[in-house]
Amino acid sequence: MKVRNLLGERLKHVSDESQIASQILMTKGGYMKPVASGIYTLLPPAQRISKKIQAIIREEMDRIDGQEVLFPVVMPASLWQSSGRYTSIGSEMVRFEDRGGNKMVLGMTHEEAAVHLADHIAKSYTQYPFMIYQLQTKFRDEPRARGGLIRVREFTMKDGYSFHTSQEDLEKYYERAYEAYVRIFARTGAKNVIAVKSDSGMMGGSVSHEFMLLSDVGEDTLVICPSCGYSANMEVAECITDNAETESGRLEKVSTPHAKTIEEVCAFLGKKPEDTAKVVVYAYNDTDKYVVVFVRGDTEVNETKLRNYLKRDVHPAASIDADSGIVPGFIGGVGFPDGVDYVVDRSLCGLRDLVTGANEEGYHYVGFDFGRDFGKPFEYTDVAKARDGGICPVCGKPHLTIKRGIEVGNIFQLGDKYTRAMGMTYLDADNTEKHPVMGCYGIGIGRLMASVCQESRDEYGPIWPMSIAPWQVEVCNLRVTDDKVRARAEKLVSDLESAGVEVLYDDREVRPGSMFADADLFGIPLRLVVSQKTEERGVVEVSSRDKRIKTEFPAEEAAAATAELVKKMLAEYDIK
Amino acid sequence: MKVRNLLGERLKHVSDESQIASQILMTKGGYMKPVASGIYTLLPPAQRISKKIQAIIREEMDRIDGQEVLFPVVMPASLWQSSGRYTSIGSEMVRFEDRGGNKMVLGMTHEEAAVHLADHIAKSYTQYPFMIYQLQTKFRDEPRARGGLIRVREFTMKDGYSFHTSQEDLEKYYERAYEAYVRIFARTGAKNVIAVKSDSGMMGGSVSHEFMLLSDVGEDTLVICPSCGYSANMEVAECITDNAETESGRLEKVSTPHAKTIEEVCAFLGKKPEDTAKVVVYAYNDTDKYVVVFVRGDTEVNETKLRNYLKRDVHPAASIDADSGIVPGFIGGVGFPDGVDYVVDRSLCGLRDLVTGANEEGYHYVGFDFGRDFGKPFEYTDVAKARDGGICPVCGKPHLTIKRGIEVGNIFQLGDKYTRAMGMTYLDADNTEKHPVMGCYGIGIGRLMASVCQESRDEYGPIWPMSIAPWQVEVCNLRVTDDKVRARAEKLVSDLESAGVEVLYDDREVRPGSMFADADLFGIPLRLVVSQKTEERGVVEVSSRDKRIKTEFPAEEAAAATAELVKKMLAEYDIK
Repeated sequence: MKVRNLLGERLKHVSDESQIASQILMTKGGYMKPVASGIYTLLPPAQRISKKIQAIIREEMDRIDGQEVLFPVVMPASLWQSSGRYTSIGSEMVRFEDRGGNKMVLGMTHEEAAVHLADHIAKSYTQYPFMIYQLQTKFRDEPRARGGLIRVREFTMKDGYSFHTSQEDLEKYYERAYEAYVRIFARTGAKNVIAVKSDSGMMGGSVSHEFMLLSDVGEDTLVICPSCGYSANMEVAECITDNAETESGRLEKVSTPHAKTIEEVCAFLGKKPEDTAKVVVYAYNDTDKYVVVFVRGDTEVNETKLRNYLKRDVHPAASIDADSGIVPGFIGGVGFPDGVDYVVDRSLCGLRDLVTGANEEGYHYVGFDFGRDFGKPFEYTDVAKARDGGICPVCGKPHLTIKRGIEVGNIFQLGDKYTRAMGMTYLDADNTEKHPVMGCYGIGIGRLMASVCQESRDEYGPIWPMSIAPWQVEVCNLRVTDDKVRARAEKLVSDLESAGVEVLYDDREVRPGSMFADADLFGIPLRLVVSQKTEERGVVEVSSRDKRIKTEFPAEEAAAATAELVKKMLAEYDIK
Repeated sequence: MKVRNLLGERLKHVSDESQIASQILMTKGGYMKPVASGIYTLLPPAQRISKKIQAIIREEMDRIDGQEVLFPVVMPASLWQSSGRYTSIGSEMVRFEDRGGNKMVLGMTHEEAAVHLADHIAKSYTQYPFMIYQLQTKFRDEPRARGGLIRVREFTMKDGYSFHTSQEDLEKYYERAYEAYVRIFARTGAKNVIAVKSDSGMMGGSVSHEFMLLSDVGEDTLVICPSCGYSANMEVAECITDNAETESGRLEKVSTPHAKTIEEVCAFLGKKPEDTAKVVVYAYNDTDKYVVVFVRGDTEVNETKLRNYLKRDVHPAASIDADSGIVPGFIGGVGFPDGVDYVVDRSLCGLRDLVTGANEEGYHYVGFDFGRDFGKPFEYTDVAKARDGGICPVCGKPHLTIKRGIEVGNIFQLGDKYTRAMGMTYLDADNTEKHPVMGCYGIGIGRLMASVCQESRDEYGPIWPMSIAPWQVEVCNLRVTDDKVRARAEKLVSDLESAGVEVLYDDREVRPGSMFADADLFGIPLRLVVSQKTEERGVVEVSSRDKRIKTEFPAEEAAAATAELVKKMLAEYDIK
């Protein structure tokens, strides 16, 4: 392919410099063009990368006995009604009526379609386990598309679904899928990817892992223990606090005019935040009722954990109804109003000399002991956010580190949630009908591409790994008008292509600076430069985009030596 | 892959035996499962065939300098408003609002997306010509899905769009695309495919061709001249009639009580249908007005040609308004009512002694001469259907043959319809802004797969060509319980796989008849059978699905010989 014929343009600047680096570089490099918010057309370089990522994923899915299928994008609502998700999923699912007035949806995931396919086919336990996967377009009506291909509405995804006759068998296969994911990310050149325990969210099920590419621009917050390797999404990370058991204080009401926040109360009373029982008021999504969370004053509430504990959806109360009995700023453990739900976080366990609100305008209590003074039944539970420097729930060392990550893949143990809801059964060895248990396994192709770019780049452009680079070698001809130089470059291109190397050839009559700037945006791993100077010296300049290689090959041997180098670099990613 | 692990089941019967053969066989073989009307999940064998077809298409598109991109499935309505097709396309296009209330559509074709992509990028004439293509899911809300994968609502399609600075350049490229299509169909093993001139329909533009796989179950009617090779879709085929110039008759009103149809009038008056001016009444879609078509009595009206001539949409009038002046059954060329439009087909040209209605209940005229008696201005035009045995418009021989075909691909010269409507320009060599001219090129993958099956099958199953077969070789082990036989079969499978051959291995403990019935449904080109008998004789039975090969290989050489045979068979389709 010649650069002059390649559809797309390279830009010096983008209009919005506040975008994340991968988005800026991929926009400048002509990889994609927005069609609507979160909807892109992929230009040839991006589509080439996408296909290579897909090929690696197919290899790894086939290696773990995956069978490729193709589910539809458009599905009847009835399929989603049968699982219950037609109502449980909100406006991120597109719904419409077809010309016959039938309710339809756009697929944002395909558990229902997978069960529909396997139902009545996998009828006997002898046919289990099996895994089916597809590479298909998905649409999720995200409210906030951002980061270029990182968070979009329409995307190509690999989604796989495994079916098993027991939880043990699922767990065994889950382990294989986990290993396959590790290989996929390694082979696509994504370097800093870790698996973290995660919340199963709308998928349901129990155990799940997200594969996170560590990045400051990631939307997810991760809790990692550098001592023992524990890692979890903040959404599910356990929070351990090492409270020394304190003596019960003397409960005493104190006037605290104008002191409403923890900071104000602490300053006024000369206390530290960890000596206070902070409250955060939430409202249920489905009723008018409130639920008050008590946490240690230096600790934050983890809303995902709170929702999972309550098994109901809540949101921070924007305003508080005067009839509720809640006195904003002064709510606390003494005289807590009836009719308001409460949750006591275990960060307060062991503390018996706390500051708490008096449920009366202008007053707090000191010396508060939950066990002695709360006067209502309660249990300590874990709804607090893990903290940087916090205690690892596995090894107990206080070195928890908070990082940010981009979710590039996820795997879920779904149990029989879908097969039970949709009535899918098989005949087991003991002649009884049972619901199979399922796992599901997703990777977004475009997001992975953008994440690799985000991780592997310099200020001038992406540094694509050889395994997924749009082309393997770029040949830059700095003197097209010179017949000898042109002949050299063209022979190089044709010899490389004959050797099976993918070449992008730049023979435009542009200044070297401009040609190299474009080459940096293409991010192709190896660059060969021919010019009048190299031709006079009988050499070809060879350099790698990551700057590790900078050398010359004798011109006559350049094609063969480069092909050899490409082969070696591909082998690092286990690509033949 | 082992048959025992393959997801899917083979059926002995299907519930609806009235379906076309390919649908029955692909349903029996477990290739697809319906999810809703015209919406299918593809099972592993079909997805494997689909990927092979896609690979061939990619090779051929790349060979004619195509660049692969990926357009979105979901597009903003604004894109389709800018071309005018948001209103001109009916309910086959799915429309919905996203969560932000923006009007969106599902892509049924991507001319608008292609112009959107190229606009502002291909700014200079030096960047032309270029062709971009994609392989992507499309959704068309067909009122009547039928024939399995032949006519569906959701399908995977290759669609390409070329951009040019002149009609001449488009025509040059169109020729290359035409040849690429010929190669694609040949390489996928579709045998009886012909290109016919076609109607451009909703695409607009002038010249277009459909690639038709000749088949009795095809939905399209084709007009073919065996003498000169002329071929056209019935929708656009020219109709030539060789009327001898007749003498003008004496115009005479005759009573024809109860004779309303051509047959009744002819029987009553002792005339032949070709001596009559038949009328067919149409109504415009957008007004209450009628348009009456006069054709020779033995000739049918071609509604597509009529619409193209009128440049308006019409439909056969279901009932006729009494105020219109039209007297049903007796409408004719004498006393034709004012306020009614008319079209006179050229099949009547030269005939001067016709039977025609009197526009009066119970009366016709004989001796009618259009030029002498009609009394209104008219021109002879071509809106009649070509007929079997009709005259070829190219060579003039009366051997036209009517056949049916399945449209497996199409190519269009679009002109500047889209670039003009959407305001896309480039700067030409003469420093003026011009609209590029476009071509577009489509192939439906699933329909091609089903069409090949329809063409290449026997009563027991598909006979897949080696180039697109789901697997290349099936190994049938007729005696799994015998260790020696099993060892032989497994070594055969592993040797074949090491040689790069795709093998489906059947080691189920089922009766040979059942195993072979399944094998017939898989339609794999080569079959190797091992049994106690073959093992005793030191051979492996080899046969081809198309029955051309039936032989034995010495057991030790069977893998190498089969691999060689596969290679040879692939080479016939130019597959390495």
